[in-house]
Amino acid sequence: MISISGAYQTRFGELWDKSLEDLILEAAVGALADARLNKNKIDLVIVANMLAEQNHLGALASQLLGLNSVPAIRVEAACASGGVALHQAVTAIKAGEANHVLVIGAEKMTDKNNGAIAQALMGAAGIEECQAGLTFVGLYALMARVYFEKFKATKNDLAYVAIKNHRHASKNPKAQYPFPVELETVLKSSCVASPLHLFDCSPITDGAAAVVVSNEPAAVAITASQIASDSVSLTERESLTELKATKIASQKAYEQAGIKSNDIDLAEVHDCFSIAEIMAVEDLGFCKKGEGFKKIKSGEFDHDGRLPVNLSGGLKACGHPVGATGIKQIVELVTQLRGEAGQRQIKKPQIGLAHNVGGSGATAAIHILRRA
Amino acid sequence: MISISGAYQTRFGELWDKSLEDLILEAAVGALADARLNKNKIDLVIVANMLAEQNHLGALASQLLGLNSVPAIRVEAACASGGVALHQAVTAIKAGEANHVLVIGAEKMTDKNNGAIAQALMGAAGIEECQAGLTFVGLYALMARVYFEKFKATKNDLAYVAIKNHRHASKNPKAQYPFPVELETVLKSSCVASPLHLFDCSPITDGAAAVVVSNEPAAVAITASQIASDSVSLTERESLTELKATKIASQKAYEQAGIKSNDIDLAEVHDCFSIAEIMAVEDLGFCKKGEGFKKIKSGEFDHDGRLPVNLSGGLKACGHPVGATGIKQIVELVTQLRGEAGQRQIKKPQIGLAHNVGGSGATAAIHILRRA
Repeated sequence: MISISGAYQTRFGELWDKSLEDLILEAAVGALADARLNKNKIDLVIVANMLAEQNHLGALASQLLGLNSVPAIRVEAACASGGVALHQAVTAIKAGEANHVLVIGAEKMTDKNNGAIAQALMGAAGIEECQAGLTFVGLYALMARVYFEKFKATKNDLAYVAIKNHRHASKNPKAQYPFPVELETVLKSSCVASPLHLFDCSPITDGAAAVVVSNEPAAVAITASQIASDSVSLTERESLTELKATKIASQKAYEQAGIKSNDIDLAEVHDCFSIAEIMAVEDLGFCKKGEGFKKIKSGEFDHDGRLPVNLSGGLKACGHPVGATGIKQIVELVTQLRGEAGQRQIKKPQIGLAHNVGGSGATAAIHILRRA
Repeated sequence: MISISGAYQTRFGELWDKSLEDLILEAAVGALADARLNKNKIDLVIVANMLAEQNHLGALASQLLGLNSVPAIRVEAACASGGVALHQAVTAIKAGEANHVLVIGAEKMTDKNNGAIAQALMGAAGIEECQAGLTFVGLYALMARVYFEKFKATKNDLAYVAIKNHRHASKNPKAQYPFPVELETVLKSSCVASPLHLFDCSPITDGAAAVVVSNEPAAVAITASQIASDSVSLTERESLTELKATKIASQKAYEQAGIKSNDIDLAEVHDCFSIAEIMAVEDLGFCKKGEGFKKIKSGEFDHDGRLPVNLSGGLKACGHPVGATGIKQIVELVTQLRGEAGQRQIKKPQIGLAHNVGGSGATAAIHILRRA
């Protein structure tokens, strides 16, 4: 059995007093303590990070922890770096190369000014999209416009994603924005790239999360780990109202886990923008294409709904330190599956899904976890 | 059998007319053609790159090649990114996750000015080393000074590394500096960080290399793949006259391949600075500690010597596009083991070793290849 034996998330937010190294160390030490594992049992370190000017973060994390000569690497797949890093950990265990892998996702975003960070994030987009002056919110705004036209959704519908995720975050002490928001607040927030307003967008965040992946039983097992890719540029896509990589990776993951999408009890999905969560619940098979916004509004994905989505608050309200997000999703699922989520705990969940996306959909990583 | 079924290197140099995408595509298409493999057989793409502001290069490479939804990632371990990427490919095949992995190392360095590139490269060093104003040549100069004191070597001894590698490069049409140099040229070149002069340093280079790693027999088999780490900062090291990660990874690799260091017929070692090659031939067990500079001077590692080292010209004279270097080393070994190295071919080599280092030694990747 490949399991998550330890999990830890730092607080997410504008952490002016923490360096990237501080965040890496806090998350790693926290995950090791949670796993009750001596650090010398770790035989592979994988760091997920997108934007740091500091390279060589695998070896750096190993040094910070005082690990001795252990293999250490960094992987990057834009905002899916965390999910892809976890997939590499599972692969290394399957290959017989490691028994305990420490996977750390970390990002320190607030040290850059807003223009610099917007430009750096565009490193995950297509070159022609950069040259056209697009930003990431612009790319998702284009998808929202096509979606609106095709399925008759409105800005009002988008708002319910933010409302739900902020309500969830209000019960998460690690969240960047642990407070609820009203419909009016969302709709009256400034427009960033029409039709997306400020509250349709995930924030710039500092934070880290870490898990220990072990080749032995623990409270939570990994029953599927899949990644898939799509074109980096929107211009190459067949459809702008779905993310093909999400569909392919999730179908493979359901098959690997031997389940169907309606067996999922809770999910953390990649809501970098409100339209992304709407497409995600559809592409993951939680509802039909074109109905995501209706189901979100109806409460189906609420804390007390049929399939709670983004109980952490999601990228929107828990925060989105890009390299850490995919690991934070896993930490939230583990916490829920263990029954340790406190105020935001749902009743005895068995199966959770994490959906982590890179760029505007060019990478998708899907993990399915099961209470062992 | 895990084999290298295809290999290709672009020309290395100041390639003003090539973009990073051009280089990735040329190398990938070249390796696929060499493998005579239909691109749709590729089930995993791994890109090794250190410095590009463009992220998400796994998905980008997949798009450039027109691959359909194939898993695609980028790995980074500073200048060892290539070797670490190859190790990930071997791991994925061992895990049963892929049958044909395309591994591309690519770097476009000349687009940055010299100050910017020196600063960017320091992203692979320790933070206190950056704060102290050190550069990479400065870090290796410190190692050279300790080595000089301990083993009574001189600047004159260092020069023979450059002389050998330039002589080798003069027979490599892909090399950045395909010409021999004289002792006087090396010694009279400007001092960069004493005792290292210009000709003790590898250059700033654009270039790419790619290999196809396959889960089936081919002319060249991978018999060992190992990585190890050490502290990023020199301050944390027990010794400055050896790279511990190189020693550990190579010992594991010899054990995995079931051979001893004197079974190696040729090697590509990480000569980012002349002192690095001297320490490498010692740490890899090709000669005793403290004797590397004497053996290099004596011709033992020459084209016609006992164990030819850096027949490609090495990082020094073939060039050092940092993310590509580890893969280029593999391409050179494959070319030699197949007997296709033209003017620089050595006589019927059976076993080759590639040694790829990240930073000032915090990562080492060792691969051993054998003519199948």
